[in-house]
Amino acid sequence: MADLPIRFGIIGCAEIARKVSRAIQLAPNATVSAVASRSLDKAANFAQANGFPPEAKIYGSYESLLDDPDVDAVYLPLPTSLHLKWAVLTAQKKKHLLTEKPVALNVGEFDQILKACDDNGVQIMDGTMWVHNPRTHKMKQFLNDKERFGQLKKVNSCFTFFADSDYLKNDIRVKPDLDALGALGDAGWYGIRSILWAADYELPKTVTAMRDPVLNEAGVLLECGASLLWDNGKVATFHCSFLSNLTMNLTAIGTLGTLHLTDFIIPYREPEASYTTSTKPNFNELVTGWVQLPSEHTVTVDLPQEACMVREFASLVKNIKKNGAHPDKKWPTISRKTQLVLDAVKASIEKDFRPVEIVS
Amino acid sequence: MADLPIRFGIIGCAEIARKVSRAIQLAPNATVSAVASRSLDKAANFAQANGFPPEAKIYGSYESLLDDPDVDAVYLPLPTSLHLKWAVLTAQKKKHLLTEKPVALNVGEFDQILKACDDNGVQIMDGTMWVHNPRTHKMKQFLNDKERFGQLKKVNSCFTFFADSDYLKNDIRVKPDLDALGALGDAGWYGIRSILWAADYELPKTVTAMRDPVLNEAGVLLECGASLLWDNGKVATFHCSFLSNLTMNLTAIGTLGTLHLTDFIIPYREPEASYTTSTKPNFNELVTGWVQLPSEHTVTVDLPQEACMVREFASLVKNIKKNGAHPDKKWPTISRKTQLVLDAVKASIEKDFRPVEIVS
Repeated sequence: MADLPIRFGIIGCAEIARKVSRAIQLAPNATVSAVASRSLDKAANFAQANGFPPEAKIYGSYESLLDDPDVDAVYLPLPTSLHLKWAVLTAQKKKHLLTEKPVALNVGEFDQILKACDDNGVQIMDGTMWVHNPRTHKMKQFLNDKERFGQLKKVNSCFTFFADSDYLKNDIRVKPDLDALGALGDAGWYGIRSILWAADYELPKTVTAMRDPVLNEAGVLLECGASLLWDNGKVATFHCSFLSNLTMNLTAIGTLGTLHLTDFIIPYREPEASYTTSTKPNFNELVTGWVQLPSEHTVTVDLPQEACMVREFASLVKNIKKNGAHPDKKWPTISRKTQLVLDAVKASIEKDFRPVEIVS
Repeated sequence: MADLPIRFGIIGCAEIARKVSRAIQLAPNATVSAVASRSLDKAANFAQANGFPPEAKIYGSYESLLDDPDVDAVYLPLPTSLHLKWAVLTAQKKKHLLTEKPVALNVGEFDQILKACDDNGVQIMDGTMWVHNPRTHKMKQFLNDKERFGQLKKVNSCFTFFADSDYLKNDIRVKPDLDALGALGDAGWYGIRSILWAADYELPKTVTAMRDPVLNEAGVLLECGASLLWDNGKVATFHCSFLSNLTMNLTAIGTLGTLHLTDFIIPYREPEASYTTSTKPNFNELVTGWVQLPSEHTVTVDLPQEACMVREFASLVKNIKKNGAHPDKKWPTISRKTQLVLDAVKASIEKDFRPVEIVS
């Protein structure tokens, strides 16, 4: 068993599952062993279109995939409102769980999923890919460098894209019974995660929503933002929207340095990814220009970030299967914090934009 | 008189006056004719150190400069709290007024200055240099382009720099009796202006301060931010600080395009200035990279932006002197709007971060 890859079953043939199917096949320690859809045809077509190995099994129901003893782990790209049911069932069937984000509709649901995973000794990880990019590790080294970056003071994160009228009418991300968290869940999740990432996952003390959310007729968020406040001098803001041109900026400012990039979630090009840093820049004597300009750094990405994610997840699963290790706590802890802040943004919007305290 | 340059008198030998002295000498339609300090020696040293023409007059008091009939216009780099007195006196002496920003401590003072200028038929312009950079005009063309940029949706502006302990103890910008607006006046002014600039100077409906201002013991702002809200779907945020690494980011997002730059107030290098734009970028089919990457544009800057400012101001003054034109209203209107929003940020901080309506 030692060198056998972790066998993934995919539940649901969402668009994002195409990318993750490829990632599973690219990851050196993972393989696709099954796919399930409510329609057998759809599952078969998905397997063929995405180059699944001929031995991969095709299921016309999620339950039958979960009963397959040859599936070690499940990738769950279903709409958020279905996560609770299928994530819990996945855990109960002793399958490890790689789930799309947001993990749940709220932290209450999240904790039910987490409990099911804990009770059944399975690993859970959410599908936030960019944190697994080698670039992210390099950027973190900069943020951790007291001489180059100093103390974190401010993070600003922005992820917007312009959804067309068809999307705004029909996509699951604007439906209250599917991805009920709308832009906050789909785009804001990344903003919140990037802020927590920069803050070494220290939860803010309060979260205050910006007074400008846009909701559709069904009450689903199409645009919103928030400010996060710690009591040690750190502040952060994020903005997310389905209504503005594709923009993906992250800026983290320390006392001594600044990190900046404009493609933090999906790098412009897969084989490499860049970011800029500056340390103690200043103006020239007459303040007509800068000395110490920001410098650009490029990181080679041998394995796409989503394949790095699968590799990391599969390696944790293998450690459980092979060595009887306990499931890793790091990733679910990070996921839960993201969900907590997300809940607080929603609560602040519902409470007339008053600050909401984070209680973990 | 037609081709004679506008003769500037400089009141006060602040650091920033060095840069503007050079700009006056670089501008093709302006010349330095006098400088005043409360100390004659200081004025003389300033004139020498900054290469003033030998005929430039040296005054040991501001009043005597204002009485000089060979001074057409005054550049006023005094601390903000002194603006009201000296700006009004400048106008009453029929001198045109190029004043450092913030123009006043509040819009009430601003309006007294404006009235004095109106009553005396003199031009007023504030010293916000970057709006005069040729890059700014090119960027504005992009923002005005409905096909490349669409409708403005979101602006984020950030200007921070790390002031050392000496600055935080002694600089006029942290003194309640001098530049009492602190970081809001010194750095936030630019953020507010950049937002108004991107919004075609349409005033927001409300301004809400972020719940995280930092004040020194004397009650002067060292760090703050705010969100601005229009009722037509536009939103904006800015952040300013004396406590974080030098960072100068401006992002304007439209429905179809994004403008972004990281040196909007002081371009990295004087001879040219860059910015990036993107129009309808998207992801590739598997969402593993972008198509239509942002593109960088570089604008040659033949005349430094502060000299462009002086040239513009001097040209308005010449039009008044030579053609009997009325003072231009555009620049004071823009200044006043900036001051109005600045006041609202301050008011929101004082009113427990409640939204403050802008009444112009």
